[in-house]
Amino acid sequence: MHLPKQVVLKEVGPRDGLQNEKATILTTDKVELINLLSMSGLSYIEVSSFVHPKWIPQLADAAEVLAQIKRQQDVTYAALIPNKRGLERALTVGIDEASVFMSASESHNKNNINKSIDETFPVLLEVVDEAKRNGLTVRGYISTVVGCPYEGYIAPEKVRHVADALFDMGVDEISLGDTIGVGVPTQIEALLTHLLPHYGPERLAMHFHDTRGIAIANVVKSMELGITKFDSALGGLGGCPYAKGASGNVATEDLLYLFDEMNIHTGVQMEKVLTAASFIEQKLGKPLASKQMEIQRHKEDET
Amino acid sequence: MHLPKQVVLKEVGPRDGLQNEKATILTTDKVELINLLSMSGLSYIEVSSFVHPKWIPQLADAAEVLAQIKRQQDVTYAALIPNKRGLERALTVGIDEASVFMSASESHNKNNINKSIDETFPVLLEVVDEAKRNGLTVRGYISTVVGCPYEGYIAPEKVRHVADALFDMGVDEISLGDTIGVGVPTQIEALLTHLLPHYGPERLAMHFHDTRGIAIANVVKSMELGITKFDSALGGLGGCPYAKGASGNVATEDLLYLFDEMNIHTGVQMEKVLTAASFIEQKLGKPLASKQMEIQRHKEDET
Repeated sequence: MHLPKQVVLKEVGPRDGLQNEKATILTTDKVELINLLSMSGLSYIEVSSFVHPKWIPQLADAAEVLAQIKRQQDVTYAALIPNKRGLERALTVGIDEASVFMSASESHNKNNINKSIDETFPVLLEVVDEAKRNGLTVRGYISTVVGCPYEGYIAPEKVRHVADALFDMGVDEISLGDTIGVGVPTQIEALLTHLLPHYGPERLAMHFHDTRGIAIANVVKSMELGITKFDSALGGLGGCPYAKGASGNVATEDLLYLFDEMNIHTGVQMEKVLTAASFIEQKLGKPLASKQMEIQRHKEDET
Repeated sequence: MHLPKQVVLKEVGPRDGLQNEKATILTTDKVELINLLSMSGLSYIEVSSFVHPKWIPQLADAAEVLAQIKRQQDVTYAALIPNKRGLERALTVGIDEASVFMSASESHNKNNINKSIDETFPVLLEVVDEAKRNGLTVRGYISTVVGCPYEGYIAPEKVRHVADALFDMGVDEISLGDTIGVGVPTQIEALLTHLLPHYGPERLAMHFHDTRGIAIANVVKSMELGITKFDSALGGLGGCPYAKGASGNVATEDLLYLFDEMNIHTGVQMEKVLTAASFIEQKLGKPLASKQMEIQRHKEDET
């Protein structure tokens, strides 16, 4: 197997993981979660979202969270930014990277952002320009890159159309999201062999949800094709509020097990990720879905 | 990706899936389960085990189950056979294939079978000889082919030692089991590139447990190396009573989703597998762990 020697795990748990959780999570608990993650060896944490609280009430305290976390020098702290207004709010508390987002599927984009794909581009361009002027790097999320809950299979050409536009705007990296977790390795291969000749692997990350249990197989196939950046959420938290049937992100600790056993360096310490996962599990008051957390619970049952 | 055009799913749910379940499952319900599976397009069902009921009380009714099921002509009905006595019991009710079993790990074999590896061979040889005399095919299970709960990593050479002995006895096919679900694709590749030059892909099947969420990635890697036979259990049922921390088999319906989406022919109908899974889920009185069953539950919640 041709595999990278090292990969980067981009932790999206505090944002993508928590955004749909119904439980009230105190700002201080979010801060503690991010501080725990900051100490685990992770180099990237997506902290929160500056989407209007009307849409994501769970993350209404984005500014407070960013103001209160204890930042580590070698960690990039990012936040989801929907528009110029959101960026202004984020800049007052300080972020390292702004994440803009849209969909490869016209219907999903319309449902998620209430704009057509073409109408979304100028809104994002405004954010990218302003973020760059403020010295931030910018990440572009493209969702539903394999399948859409409304349109079914999404052809790689549609993803490329959006990716071209985002890179043209000056986005530094694109995260390709299988938002509803329908993709299989052959589809990931079709997508990546379409995109990689144009963009190379350095500017692409993969963002898998594990709705159908295929996420880790897709990560392996992505690595074999040269991808070295993967989004994940501790505990397998997360889902998309506008994508029916979407379940959690691939779990950070399950990916970490894979990378560790395949001797692929991450710099992330399993024990510390599990500590953070146990912490947020208690706050959520329900068992997290990751396999590693399940194994932890069995260990506890046996003692 | 180099992939087979078709694969065979070998359903082990009624045996490997149920053997550790604590709930009382009526013989008539096991019969109904197997009848439902027989109508799904599956060509192979491991029905029960003739291990002494003292060890696996759940499967004490193996003979009754085999006597009562409605057999389909194109389905192979197999049972686990520990020794000559077990085979005699099985032959009175009729099976198509006898499955013998042992471990690649000395300690796991000792814990599971109460014999050393070398002491196990003659017991299995007796079964193989007698099964062949009665016109049965014989399957050999090798467990802990990647990792052992007592010994850790198991080198491919140890698996080959046992596989050589089993094939020498006249076993028709060997199922390689990652009993405790620790393997990752690089290890599966190391194992298979060691074994395939000697045995070829036709005589090997892979048997993955999904304890750490890597089973489907391992299936994909196995297919890329030429393997076309996979054991699975509906609902992700199962586990090994003697392997601490072992959780369920990879779920038939989750594998089926993978194969269907990758256009790999199985002949198995998803809807009918889900019907069988729903049936046994009701009898067990707890939600099954497969992703496809989880999706079914979400659908029901929404209606």
